[in-house]
Amino acid sequence: MKTVSIKKSPNIAFVSVSDMIAILDQVGTVEFMLGLVEYLEEDFARWETFDKSPRFASHSEEGVIELMPTGEKQYFGFKYVNGHPKNTRVGLQTVTAFGVLSDVATGYPLLLSEMTILTALRTAATSAMMAKYLAPKGSTTLSMIGCGAQSEFQVLAMSAVIGITKVRLYDVDPDAVAKCAENLSDKGLEITLCSSAEEVVLGADIITTCTADKRNATVLTDAMVPQGIHINAIGGDCPGKTELDAQLLMRGDVFIEYEPQTRIEGDIQQLDASSPVTEMYHVIRGDKPGRTSPEQLTIFDGVGFAVEDFSALRYVYNLLNDGSPHKKLELIASPQNPRNLYGLSQSAGHSERKVVGL
Amino acid sequence: MKTVSIKKSPNIAFVSVSDMIAILDQVGTVEFMLGLVEYLEEDFARWETFDKSPRFASHSEEGVIELMPTGEKQYFGFKYVNGHPKNTRVGLQTVTAFGVLSDVATGYPLLLSEMTILTALRTAATSAMMAKYLAPKGSTTLSMIGCGAQSEFQVLAMSAVIGITKVRLYDVDPDAVAKCAENLSDKGLEITLCSSAEEVVLGADIITTCTADKRNATVLTDAMVPQGIHINAIGGDCPGKTELDAQLLMRGDVFIEYEPQTRIEGDIQQLDASSPVTEMYHVIRGDKPGRTSPEQLTIFDGVGFAVEDFSALRYVYNLLNDGSPHKKLELIASPQNPRNLYGLSQSAGHSERKVVGL
Repeated sequence: MKTVSIKKSPNIAFVSVSDMIAILDQVGTVEFMLGLVEYLEEDFARWETFDKSPRFASHSEEGVIELMPTGEKQYFGFKYVNGHPKNTRVGLQTVTAFGVLSDVATGYPLLLSEMTILTALRTAATSAMMAKYLAPKGSTTLSMIGCGAQSEFQVLAMSAVIGITKVRLYDVDPDAVAKCAENLSDKGLEITLCSSAEEVVLGADIITTCTADKRNATVLTDAMVPQGIHINAIGGDCPGKTELDAQLLMRGDVFIEYEPQTRIEGDIQQLDASSPVTEMYHVIRGDKPGRTSPEQLTIFDGVGFAVEDFSALRYVYNLLNDGSPHKKLELIASPQNPRNLYGLSQSAGHSERKVVGL
Repeated sequence: MKTVSIKKSPNIAFVSVSDMIAILDQVGTVEFMLGLVEYLEEDFARWETFDKSPRFASHSEEGVIELMPTGEKQYFGFKYVNGHPKNTRVGLQTVTAFGVLSDVATGYPLLLSEMTILTALRTAATSAMMAKYLAPKGSTTLSMIGCGAQSEFQVLAMSAVIGITKVRLYDVDPDAVAKCAENLSDKGLEITLCSSAEEVVLGADIITTCTADKRNATVLTDAMVPQGIHINAIGGDCPGKTELDAQLLMRGDVFIEYEPQTRIEGDIQQLDASSPVTEMYHVIRGDKPGRTSPEQLTIFDGVGFAVEDFSALRYVYNLLNDGSPHKKLELIASPQNPRNLYGLSQSAGHSERKVVGL
């Protein structure tokens, strides 16, 4: 009789949607994003230690499915994320995501986490971190174009990191504006509901464009934007999906995450491949300047880069080690003798199977 | 008071390691591989419908972590897989894997499955499928070089598909040979334990090389191999990891999965980039010949391609729909109003949270 002795304990940490909600309840949503900003700054400051490549994207008529991998000496991470603008018509999310953090030394995954909520948090934390270096000093007014799933996170992160007190909201869908305003109603912010993009940008220190249409749109024309503000443009993030007038991009100073990816996916896909841009890790490290004068028009052409997801996964993994809510998942086969995978595969119902702890 | 109404039911099918073991118990391991061969042939025959790219590989000193994506009109799939030869020294698997199958129309993941066991099954099913077209008619003797985690699956698939009755086993580690022989002892096969590569290949119709060392090894020299046999070379599968003598590769007719990937990863990385090869989908479709004469030396230089994992995930997903064991996982956030992700993220402990079914 053969004895197959296996480790059957669930062996990877799993943060479900409910766990992420519980973590935010425990830590606080704003505090979570402030903590994440620290991880992001740390990882951007050690930019050259990361294996970087443009994301893998599989495009279809309905949308895109992407894999975003990156890693350094200790951890490897990747995110699966889709973008399907028509999903909301059938009651589904435009963007859903999950991610994995692994141990480089063994190749074993350590953490599987929901990232639909986490992506919204990291995108908002990234926008706020970039604005720290780019927005006019003393910025108080944020204009939001697009009040979809990410909008409240964007507003709260800008408020916590930059000190925004006035928020102007606009979306082509008035219900989205109302939803966003209601969600933000108890945050001590002065909120103005606007009915056009022209109206929403009046008096802005920071304009965030965060729209979902997969087309070359112009939600901001050159004429709508004065000097001396910061544009946080995060909706133009794949080929054929842009938000800003090319004239506006040529007038402002453009800051980006990772040039090989942003040239393909960002608003600057409209410009010549030699148009001047600054990768933000230089600014965060102090190699290159961010905002240099009050009159400057700065533009963060954000597309979302794998290092940001890596920071988010690393942050969540460390929170779990500090006791945050999560589950364990039996994802990785662990035969007692690693070369006896076959024995493990035949162990159903074997009474002699020995179950041992991790 | 805000009401946040969310779908909280687990929303993606999950096949854990225990579930995979239970599926094999229910279906039968050999029958599972025979079923998978049908899916593989179906998918290779419609090769041009797949989005194909070489896998993403992140190399470190200890090993490699890879993402292998592919998709067609209905499904997108990817596999995470590592290869860390030194893992066995600390009681871990050299190769572990998991995979995801998604709906292209919505971008939503449908299935998360363990793939450590499933990869061994699909690699064996692929080898056997290729041998159907390449091995000498009436092959009865299989020589195995390498008796690690994949060896028993390889033998059983070759036996079921090709009709192998005699198996010769060799590994640098005699314990691995003994383990493989014991696992195969009740399968009605004539098993011979060998103590060298030179000995194991004697009388072979098919030689399978399936070794784990990450280096340019020569487990088969030109002189060891007569004409008229089929070599199933699956261990040489990443840059700097090969098994066959270059002379042998030049003498035989080489068949591969996907040229852009195999030129980088296969044993043919040792040859000129213009060396003659045949992609197997042509053979399976009948566009090009497989074996043409009894004297021919055929070599399947297998590296494992994303379409094979796709076939395996599609097969498992269909088995689940027929009632095979699995769980559900709450991986994807599903707010009732898809644009109200923020409301969902704040719903911890809200008594008014309405939990609805999928």
